[in-house]
Order: sequence, then C-alpha cells, then structure tokens
Amino acid sequence: MTVDEPISKPLSYNDFKTLFTPALSKLDAQRVCNPFYLIKGLPKDLKPAENSVYLAGGMPFETMFPFKKVSVKYRTSPGKLGSLEQNDASDDELYGEYSIPLYSDPSVADKEMDIARGFQYSDNIGLPTLISYAKKLVNRINKPIYDNWDVIITSGSSDSLSKCCDLFVDEDTTVLCEEFTFVNICGHVNYANGSCLPLKLQVTMDEELQGLDTDYMEDLLENWEKYFPDKKKKLVLYSIATGQNPTGVTQSLSKRKKIYEICCKHNVIILEDDPYGYLQLPKFDAANPLKNPYNEAEMSVESFCKDILKPSYMTIDTEGRVLRLETFSKVGSPGLRLSFIAGNKFLIERLANISFMTTRNASGISQSLINNLLYEFGTKYQKQINPNADIIDGWLNWCMKIAGEYTNRRNVLFKAIHESEAFKKGMFELLEPSCGMFASVVVNMKPEWINAKEKSERDLQIKRVMDYLLCCLLETGCMPVLGYKMTIHREFSMERANFLRITFAKTESTEMFELGAKNMSTAFERLFDEYMTVNEKWSLSPAGLVGM
Amino acid sequence: MTVDEPISKPLSYNDFKTLFTPALSKLDAQRVCNPFYLIKGLPKDLKPAENSVYLAGGMPFETMFPFKKVSVKYRTSPGKLGSLEQNDASDDELYGEYSIPLYSDPSVADKEMDIARGFQYSDNIGLPTLISYAKKLVNRINKPIYDNWDVIITSGSSDSLSKCCDLFVDEDTTVLCEEFTFVNICGHVNYANGSCLPLKLQVTMDEELQGLDTDYMEDLLENWEKYFPDKKKKLVLYSIATGQNPTGVTQSLSKRKKIYEICCKHNVIILEDDPYGYLQLPKFDAANPLKNPYNEAEMSVESFCKDILKPSYMTIDTEGRVLRLETFSKVGSPGLRLSFIAGNKFLIERLANISFMTTRNASGISQSLINNLLYEFGTKYQKQINPNADIIDGWLNWCMKIAGEYTNRRNVLFKAIHESEAFKKGMFELLEPSCGMFASVVVNMKPEWINAKEKSERDLQIKRVMDYLLCCLLETGCMPVLGYKMTIHREFSMERANFLRITFAKTESTEMFELGAKNMSTAFERLFDEYMTVNEKWSLSPAGLVGM
Repeated sequence: MTVDEPISKPLSYNDFKTLFTPALSKLDAQRVCNPFYLIKGLPKDLKPAENSVYLAGGMPFETMFPFKKVSVKYRTSPGKLGSLEQNDASDDELYGEYSIPLYSDPSVADKEMDIARGFQYSDNIGLPTLISYAKKLVNRINKPIYDNWDVIITSGSSDSLSKCCDLFVDEDTTVLCEEFTFVNICGHVNYANGSCLPLKLQVTMDEELQGLDTDYMEDLLENWEKYFPDKKKKLVLYSIATGQNPTGVTQSLSKRKKIYEICCKHNVIILEDDPYGYLQLPKFDAANPLKNPYNEAEMSVESFCKDILKPSYMTIDTEGRVLRLETFSKVGSPGLRLSFIAGNKFLIERLANISFMTTRNASGISQSLINNLLYEFGTKYQKQINPNADIIDGWLNWCMKIAGEYTNRRNVLFKAIHESEAFKKGMFELLEPSCGMFASVVVNMKPEWINAKEKSERDLQIKRVMDYLLCCLLETGCMPVLGYKMTIHREFSMERANFLRITFAKTESTEMFELGAKNMSTAFERLFDEYMTVNEKWSLSPAGLVGM
Repeated sequence: MTVDEPISKPLSYNDFKTLFTPALSKLDAQRVCNPFYLIKGLPKDLKPAENSVYLAGGMPFETMFPFKKVSVKYRTSPGKLGSLEQNDASDDELYGEYSIPLYSDPSVADKEMDIARGFQYSDNIGLPTLISYAKKLVNRINKPIYDNWDVIITSGSSDSLSKCCDLFVDEDTTVLCEEFTFVNICGHVNYANGSCLPLKLQVTMDEELQGLDTDYMEDLLENWEKYFPDKKKKLVLYSIATGQNPTGVTQSLSKRKKIYEICCKHNVIILEDDPYGYLQLPKFDAANPLKNPYNEAEMSVESFCKDILKPSYMTIDTEGRVLRLETFSKVGSPGLRLSFIAGNKFLIERLANISFMTTRNASGISQSLINNLLYEFGTKYQKQINPNADIIDGWLNWCMKIAGEYTNRRNVLFKAIHESEAFKKGMFELLEPSCGMFASVVVNMKPEWINAKEKSERDLQIKRVMDYLLCCLLETGCMPVLGYKMTIHREFSMERANFLRITFAKTESTEMFELGAKNMSTAFERLFDEYMTVNEKWSLSPAGLVGM
C-alpha cells in the first residue's frame, strides 16, 4: 500500500519550520502560549527533590471523581440490518467486555487507560496511549515517507478542520475545494476570514479519471494572476480524496501524484480529509445484488490493508505539505467527537499550540473509551487469530467488518432501487460510490425542462426541477440531500448539480430501504408526470423554493 | 439566595439582539451558517409524509457502533484523604451503579441518555436532557431575574472562554481582568486579537471589601479616554467572582451590585467564570483545625444552597449582559471536558452558531456519562432522602460532599502549615480562601531584600526573592505556582506578587500534606538564612530566573 519513493535527505523539524512558516495565517504567527506553571531557567546546579509534594495545579485528586469504574459491553461485529446483532450466535461470541479501572495494572498502563489519568486534566495533544495507537494506525496503513511526523488527537473532524483553518487561513488565503463537497468547510474557512474556490470534479465510473480535474486545476494555478489579479496566491487544498462526499469518487494513485506535483509547484498545503476511507465498497453486481466479498474466506485484515484500502497523500508526501485528517466517528461513534491529524512535526506543534489556546484536549472519557477498546480488540485478535499481529489489527478487523456491513447496506438499497419502476424507466441514474456511505441519484432531465438559452436561466430551471422533485419526495416519504446544496459555488456547478445524495447509513432495516426506494420511485414518477404540465401541484417560483 | 428585583418590562430576544449586537466582534457579525441539510420555503400545501425514510444525513446506524452498553460504578461520597473511600462502609453503601443502555426505556428517555442518541451526531448546543439539567441547576441556585435565558453545553471552560472571546473580542476590544487571575484568559483574548487590562484586586480577609477594587475600576472607566486616548472603549469584564483564582477571594453581593452598575453605565459585557463556586470553605479555626461544618447534622442540601453558596451575577442581571460559565471539571472530572454557559437567548444563540462553525457539540460520551449520573443521583436522593426533592438535588448533595472533602483537605494542609517552623517564625502569612482549591502563601520580605528606590528595580528585587524561594522549594521538595506568573500585567502587580499559590486538590494523603508543609517550611528557612548573604547558593541574575 505504501509507496516507497527515495527522498534526497531527511527533512528535519527546522526544514519544516522554514518551509511552512510562510504558509501560516497572520494570526497564528502571533499566537504564543506561555503556561503559568512552566518553570524555566533554573540554575544548573539545582537538584530538584525526587518526590516533590505537588501543590501546583488545580487538579482534583482522583478519589474526588464520582466515577469508580466504567465497564463497557462491546460488539465483536456490527449489528446486521433489521437486527441488533450480526447473527444468532451466543452472547459470548457477540459481545466482549472491557473496563476503565480507577488504576491500571502497571504492567499494562502504557496501553490501557485508567480513570486516574484519563478522567484527569491531560495533555492538549491527547492521551499518550491513544496517540501511540493513532501513530500505529498511520504507520500500518499509510506509512509516511518522511520520519519527522506526528499526530494530534482532536475533538472530531469539525474541530480538526476548524484548527487547520485557524492555522493557515486568513483574509489572503484561498481554500481550493472539490466543487461538490462537505460544505461545512466553507463555514470553517469563513470563520477564519478566508474564502473557498471550487475545483472541477470528474464524476465518472472510470477509476483513473474520477476525482479532481487536474487539467482544470493546473490551468487555474498556472494562470492564477490572470484569473484573479487581485487575489493573493496563498493556497490550501481541501480534498476528500477517498470516497468523496457527496459523489463517492476516489482519486487514483496516479491522479494523487499529479495533484501533489501541482501542489508542490504552487506551494499549496493539502488538507486530506478522510472520514470514509475504511468504508471501501466492492463493485455492485446487479446480477447478483447481495454479493458481498467481505463475507468471503479470502478476505483478511492483511488483504484489507494491502489490496482494499487506498493510500493516503502522506505516502507520497516528499515535502511534508499534507495534513491527514482521520476520525473515529464513522467506524467508532460520532458522539465520541474524536479525530486525529497526522502531519509534519512543525505543523502538528502549531496545532497543539492552537489546542492549548482554544479547546484544550479532547474528552478524556471519549479517549479512554476508544483507547481501551483498541487495546481490547488488539489483544483479543492476537489471542484468537494471530499471536504475531500488531495490536492495531484488532481495530482494523473491526473496520473491515464495518466496511462489510456498509457493503451489505449498499447492496440492499441498490437492489431495491434497481427494482424500482422509475429506475427501470430511466428517469434517473444511480452512481455507484467506490467507498463511503453515500450514492448519487442523477436526474435524467427532460430537455424541455431546461431549455433556456442563458446559462443563468438554465441554472434556475435545474434548481426548480430539483426543488419540485424534493417536494414530491417529501410527500411520498423519502428524505435525501439536494446536490446543489453541497456546492462551493452554486453557479459554477449548477449544470452538474442535477442529483440527490442518498445514504445507506442510518436506515434500520431492509424493509425501510425497500420503502425508501419505492417512495423515491413514486416521487420520480410524479415529477415526470406533473412537471411543466397543468398538473404541477405546487406553484413554485421560477427559481424554485425560496431561501434554498 | 436569589435577589428579587423587579424589572420594568420583560426583555425579549429582540431587545437582547438590539442591545448586544454592537458588542459582538467584527468577525462574529459575518458568521452565517446555512446547514446543507436544512430545507426552507416549502409550499404551504405540501404535506410531508409522516414516516419519511431518512436517506439524508451520514449517520451510522447505532448497531454499527462498537458499544452495546456502558456501566458505571460510581461513588456515593468522595474518597477520604489517604484512602480510596470516605469510610469503611460496605460496598453497597459506598457505591452505586448506573448504565448507558443502547436504548432507554421510553418512560425515562427524557431524562436518561442512551447510546443510540448520546453516541450519535447530536445538536451543537448539547444533549436536550443535559441542557435541561443545567437549566435546573441555574434555576435552583442562581435564578436569573429575566426569563429569556438559555444554556449551551461546551467542551470545558477553556472552550467556553474561547467561544466567548470569539464572540466579543477583536482588535478593538479590551478585556478587563482581575490583576491576578487564571492567565490562560490572555491566551484566549490574544487568539481573538484583543488585549487584556488588569483591574486592581483587594486581597483582604474583609468579606465586604475583598475582590475587585471598585474605586479603581470606576475611575478607570470614567476616565477611559484620558488614560487610553487611542483605545476604543469596547469592554468585556472577565471575573472569577467566587473563590477567585489564585487569591481565593469572593465578591460580596454589595460589591457585585456596584460592579454591575459600573458595567451597565459603561456598557461592559460580564463573563462570570465560576469553576470553584460549589467548593465553599467555612472559616478555618486554628484552635480546632480539623473542624468541618460539612460533617455537622444541620448541614443539608437546602442550607448548602440557601446559606452557603454565593449568588451569581445572573441574579442581579437586569440587562442580560452576563454570561455565566460553569463547569463539571471540579465536582465531576476534568477529563469530561464539559462545561456550560448560561446567558440571554440572543448571546447563547450566537455561541451556538460558533459551535456549529468550529467544534460542533461536546463529546456525547461525556454528556451521557454525566447526564445519567445526574439522573441517578437525583432519583436516589428522592428515594433515600426526600421524595419531593428536585431531580437536581442529588447532584447538589454530591457537590456539598465534595465541598466537605475540600474543607477537610484545606484543614489538613493549614494545620500542617500552622505547625511549621517558618510559619511560627512569621516568615510568611497564609491567606485563607473563602472558596475553591487554592491558598496564598505571602512572603514577609525583609526590608533589605527590596530596598531599591526605583519601582522597576524593586520589582526585579521581588522577583529575584521569589525565584530564589522557588529554587529552595524545588530542592526541598515542594511544588507551588509563583504568584507573579499569574499576573495580567507584571509591572502593574509585581509589588503585590510576593506570594505563592498552593493547592490542596491533588495531594493524596495527610502524610504528604504534612511533608509538603515541612518542605515548604524548610525552603523558607533556607531563604531567610541564605538570601543576600555569602551563603546564597545559586548565582541568580539580578532579575532572577531567566525566561520566567
């Protein structure tokens, strides 16, 4: 999985500092923290007592916490659609138990977290054991090609994005984004006073082509001064390179190399947001819709890591310009609010400085809960499957099972949609995601719906059709997200925004997926029957729904 | 406890908006969030299906979480010094158990949090049940005198401060602070590009006088333009009004009224940070040093709330200019990273907007853990003590027990210090805190140590003595915080910074407190023996330790 490219000389912390200090936001340059409890400049001949009585920090002693012990009953496999469990095995097979004790046994204290440490004030960058697991995870799947990298634990990926934007973005910064994306990024960028700019996205089934349009990107950056004579060329790329949200496309390795090369040339920082990377989806087989390669015997943690997962930009990052954002939200729980950022030591140190001056560390409860789960999964895997396995393999085994369950969910929804009337009649196409939890439903517009000569008018026509479709969907009983609501710049993308984003994440049963597909089909039939006829039920304005 | 002052007419959301929009930071005024999944402007005659199939948000279904059930063994009382428990009672008396189930029973789902909701993506302002408890807490102890107030859950008080600074502070804003304070506030203020200004603090045992010097404050604000001709008068007051950090002083109600009046006159927003308010400490009785009124029969939740706790600024806030910051760190666990802010609805809504654009909600795991503890404590209290008690009283009972244990810790440390040689010899004074976890040790400087004519030189002399004392302390084995490290503006306060902050929070046993007091005493004796004699052991520069 990792790509071994020789680098001429190892990059040091100071190299990173020199390279990336100019990329920091103006405000970040003035952020200095000087904790009041730090002691500096002590005489060299001073011999501090070994067991000093600590009367400094306002930390409640651990017997003042109301919590004595936390025990967790955990799943060995995710629940199956429509059932709380994956199968009808015994409780012992389905579940395990681990705990967060008041004090860990010293023999495991470097791996297991306890209440005395995890529920106390702790380091801004995260609990040492969890940082260690996060590093192992990066090393195992996406080994960076330089050595001086580090990891910081954050309070979820929104927090990661917020901190990355605080680090790089000010009024002179432009953040380049896939034209359709997780648009909350714009909120983070605006918060830091910068602006976003869309890059064209190739949404195609061609695995080499899909993802950012590199020709478009290259032209834009080569001719920046021509296109934007008044805009500084201080750039950050925000990209969901694997299982892109909302389109589900994944950049091929050759495309990543091309994009990386462009970013080096034009000094673009890369924020690689990868919330869905573990949720790899094998090809859907319409002839055998419930086929799930994850259930087959040859699938193993080894093959999952080696053949299935896609390599991060960190594996080709010769200059240290990539920050990789991972999260425990999708394969753990969103409520953990736990993510991590990997990148070169200088940038991670700057992010730690931001943590100190804003949120401090992520919840120690969340960190302890996931840390001890990683440890429990790991030791169990070593006991039951492979005594030589890395401690992180138990977690990867869980990730693989989750990917298998998402594949199952994708299959069930896709089967139902393929069997629906509207699909058979060609009213829409279903774009298959390579990864993640979303699929796109592309409306096959009738030419007369979008017949205006002017692009701006045609844009409104497209919006009005999509809004009418939304109304139909809401009445028949199906709740999607409108593609045009996920654009960085609506005008730029409206012609390609004739789609819905649907997810197979949240629905609870096969029956509900079937009902959803049926309702969606009914809504499409209504659209095709009613739209631009005397039967239009709602008198939408020429621009569709107001305020959308 | 609450102060009933009639207000002429109820203030509405729009009144607050009108009053406080000008107080927002420039950046906040441009912060607009428009979530992509929100639907607006639907036709009035559209009838959404009742049980729509949800294919919108990327939320993993709850059986995909690895967590099936979380069980918590909790303490009914905090552990006693030197022991894991408060007494030798049976396990049943010492501990209870509660859980976070996958699904709560519908009959208690409005009070108990479950995994399906608490571990999922959730509302930025916090879980509804926890918000409800937080409101009950405010209502029970510090009932605001206006109605349109609300609460937002944050990820700890650093996060609260960070968000409040983002809300109000820009380069034109000055944050007024107690001259000695929790100086991390400066980091938050600088992060938002503003500046801090110290206000004189009266550190005295006189309960009416202690706290901010109102004459100083009044003069400063009345003559702002004279003192700061180039500084805008856009002001925020950051105050730890109860159990001030580091001095332990508490503002009397009459002082609060005076300060509030000044703030109204000069349009100053008040950030009332109250991390220690529940840790009320009865007077120390040197003749009976281990006396602890919390152990006496007449102490009850009722009397704790009515007679012991001090009223918040919210109880006198006729204009809605107070934001009150509470935390679960000191009476729960710091690792929860859970706090809340109470204030008028407009400002809380702006803070919610900031949450949406930065961190999102606080950890759902932390929220669930504390929520269900509040519920468990509450129902247990109703069963065992008072069936008519408010659900929040069980938690207040815990807070009272924690205050009792801090009183015990204070007693043990103070007794040991009172018995120490250096104390008896008058080398320092011990300032008694009214509340909290800190006490001040004020060095009785020999006149010849600080004999310079120029203030600036005398400041250095004071610093050098304190630094020398620190060296002695570290060698003898006692770790305090230097008072001068907790100044907003060192020059402004150095003459009053001849003290150490010590805490009785973190030490584990009576023996360690005694050792700490002994080591501190030894260090003081060394200081008085060696300082400015040929026996000075370390050759400190005239300015003391470099970099401090």
